[in-house]
Amino acid sequence: PHTKLPKVGTTIFSVMSQMAAEHNAINLSQGFPDFDGPSALLEAVGRYIAQGANQYAPMTGVPALREQIAQKVALLYGREVSVDHEITVTSGATEALFAAIAAVVRADDEVIIFDPAYDSYEPAIELNGAKAVRLQLQAPDFRVNWDEVSAHITDKTRLIILNSPHNPTGTTLDADDLERLAELVEGTDILLLGDEVYEHIVFDNAPHHSLLTHAQLYERSFVVSSFGKTYHTTGWKVGYCIAPPALSVELRKVHQYLTFSTSTPMQLALADIMRDEPQHVSELPAFYQHKRDLFCDLIQPSRFKFTPTSGTYFQCVDYSAISDLPDVEFCKWLIEKAGVAAIPVSVFCEAPPDIRLVRFCFAKSDETLRAAAERICAI
Amino acid sequence: PHTKLPKVGTTIFSVMSQMAAEHNAINLSQGFPDFDGPSALLEAVGRYIAQGANQYAPMTGVPALREQIAQKVALLYGREVSVDHEITVTSGATEALFAAIAAVVRADDEVIIFDPAYDSYEPAIELNGAKAVRLQLQAPDFRVNWDEVSAHITDKTRLIILNSPHNPTGTTLDADDLERLAELVEGTDILLLGDEVYEHIVFDNAPHHSLLTHAQLYERSFVVSSFGKTYHTTGWKVGYCIAPPALSVELRKVHQYLTFSTSTPMQLALADIMRDEPQHVSELPAFYQHKRDLFCDLIQPSRFKFTPTSGTYFQCVDYSAISDLPDVEFCKWLIEKAGVAAIPVSVFCEAPPDIRLVRFCFAKSDETLRAAAERICAI
Ligand SMILES: CSCCC(=O)C(=O)O
Ligand SMILES: CSCCC(=O)C(=O)O
Repeated sequence: PHTKLPKVGTTIFSVMSQMAAEHNAINLSQGFPDFDGPSALLEAVGRYIAQGANQYAPMTGVPALREQIAQKVALLYGREVSVDHEITVTSGATEALFAAIAAVVRADDEVIIFDPAYDSYEPAIELNGAKAVRLQLQAPDFRVNWDEVSAHITDKTRLIILNSPHNPTGTTLDADDLERLAELVEGTDILLLGDEVYEHIVFDNAPHHSLLTHAQLYERSFVVSSFGKTYHTTGWKVGYCIAPPALSVELRKVHQYLTFSTSTPMQLALADIMRDEPQHVSELPAFYQHKRDLFCDLIQPSRFKFTPTSGTYFQCVDYSAISDLPDVEFCKWLIEKAGVAAIPVSVFCEAPPDIRLVRFCFAKSDETLRAAAERICAI
Repeated sequence: PHTKLPKVGTTIFSVMSQMAAEHNAINLSQGFPDFDGPSALLEAVGRYIAQGANQYAPMTGVPALREQIAQKVALLYGREVSVDHEITVTSGATEALFAAIAAVVRADDEVIIFDPAYDSYEPAIELNGAKAVRLQLQAPDFRVNWDEVSAHITDKTRLIILNSPHNPTGTTLDADDLERLAELVEGTDILLLGDEVYEHIVFDNAPHHSLLTHAQLYERSFVVSSFGKTYHTTGWKVGYCIAPPALSVELRKVHQYLTFSTSTPMQLALADIMRDEPQHVSELPAFYQHKRDLFCDLIQPSRFKFTPTSGTYFQCVDYSAISDLPDVEFCKWLIEKAGVAAIPVSVFCEAPPDIRLVRFCFAKSDETLRAAAERICAI
């Protein structure tokens, strides 16, 4: 039968998590922690529910939560954003990404994305009748080649999607990247979509270079983040999008008909934790750096090759010393034979990458990481 | 600046609820109850959160909830649907409607909708490059004129959106309507989208004639419902879509990139309440019929004219004996001068309806209804 998305099957995250469950493998595939967020956050939801906060939230988000977001943005990125006109709470970052794309990408437009690219971008672009122009980030450092970007800008280019810290490779944009980008888009109508869901997971004392830090870039940007990633609550599905007023107006026109609003008690609980435990965010880099370092130390003796990741809670590893299998098959083999689930990187790419890479998620308890590493080293 | 949705402003529900709050009016506009769902439901969410059910739910929904939905559908509509292949839990019915439209409506297609039409349909159709063909339901009974539908079917007709019980008019489709519809679509490729979010709110002992009851219709249908409407938890944003396997495959291709999944603890709590308190659903018609009857009795002495609604928790009233104002202005006047908020019906119509109608929501405590009726009778 007819399909609007002929290239699309079930998202790799569902496929791998389900296969991991079936084989009782340690699941380092889909990106979610196996531990919980702050207990005050967990308790607050039940309290708000008991108090009757169970009806529609405002379409743009609960005011208290938008205020906390604005305060955080001022503190971390030095930007004053309007609580009423620039912040929209969404049902996860995924909704924010889709809504931003649907709000501005028109039929026959081109959208530049970078391979490996998160798997929701291209279908969202195609559903809006536009074309994804996929530029490949080159191993081993996976940095953006701005000359190549420049060569691919046409008068159809409507949007560039930047993902930093980058899933799956863990690379981050730096201040020079933002400057190059600013030069490129200056004088054009090109808009930017910053997928910054790992904004608080950047290592080695490096700052996160958000699009929010750069005045000329922010003017034309949607910046997306995720409470699921930051507060260890991926199953609550709360995210947000920050954009200048004129872009937020367009985003909200779509958001109001996509989901209308997002869970009221969870928004209220998140507002409280942001206010009461601001240290959660500042402690997150060290928290995850410990896990990165532990995991990397533990798998050092294995036959996988890697450089420790700079951001996100993912570690990509090169398995070419172990197997000639394509990465999807290798991941199946890993689950069935080694009892560990990973994500094949080629599914995020138009052309299979030169090197053989899979992605492990280290947002796991130290015990889980030890158990997984033992299996990984035995391969 | 450029907009993809030139006709769209802020949804009427946000506008009216905000205006009601600013003027401290009794809010009978946006459709949500001012009372809570079953206490076991409310308590269960906090329990699941404490137990650590805080990471991604399966993309298609928590299995226990899909099983309960399948059991309900078998019991009420006599249809066996596959838990794995025909049920998808979504972030509210709004997401399900958008995903179904995005999954099958292509550029230049036509989609037949009935005025007054819920305000999300047309923007969702337009974002997919298609055209809404709006047929007007005629006062006072607002029944579908199937000959008119037949006259508007072309080879571009991709989808017909049916909303029963109908928001805002409260009318319901009957068995004859389903038969006429079945004759019309027989031998065509036309698909159906049933917005049945008020499936459990049908009065006067009438059954709900779901598309699920009709084998030939169901074959080509997406059927959408809402836990928010049924369990008095509109702010939790959990809904679902039932469709035959081939259509569910297409729906899920979109859903997985629109929101990916829906709140895990809330899905688990809803599964428990469906299993433990099946009477909630069977008691709902009497529960809301009491409120309809109370509200209608109380406003009988007013200068508004109306026929009691057959389904939904909305009552439309004709205000032509009171004012010559267009309905949007009349609603502003109602808030400012009478202290009661309603929804103007013309915002759901392409052409303003002949009669002057506004919609009141009676999903309110008896005290709220009494207080509102007092103000309404004083007009
Ligand atoms: C929405 S499921 C995917 C979670 C995630 O961000 C990832 O694993 O990359
Ligand atoms: C999504 S807000 C609108 C609620 C509703 O269904 C209505 O008031 O008609």
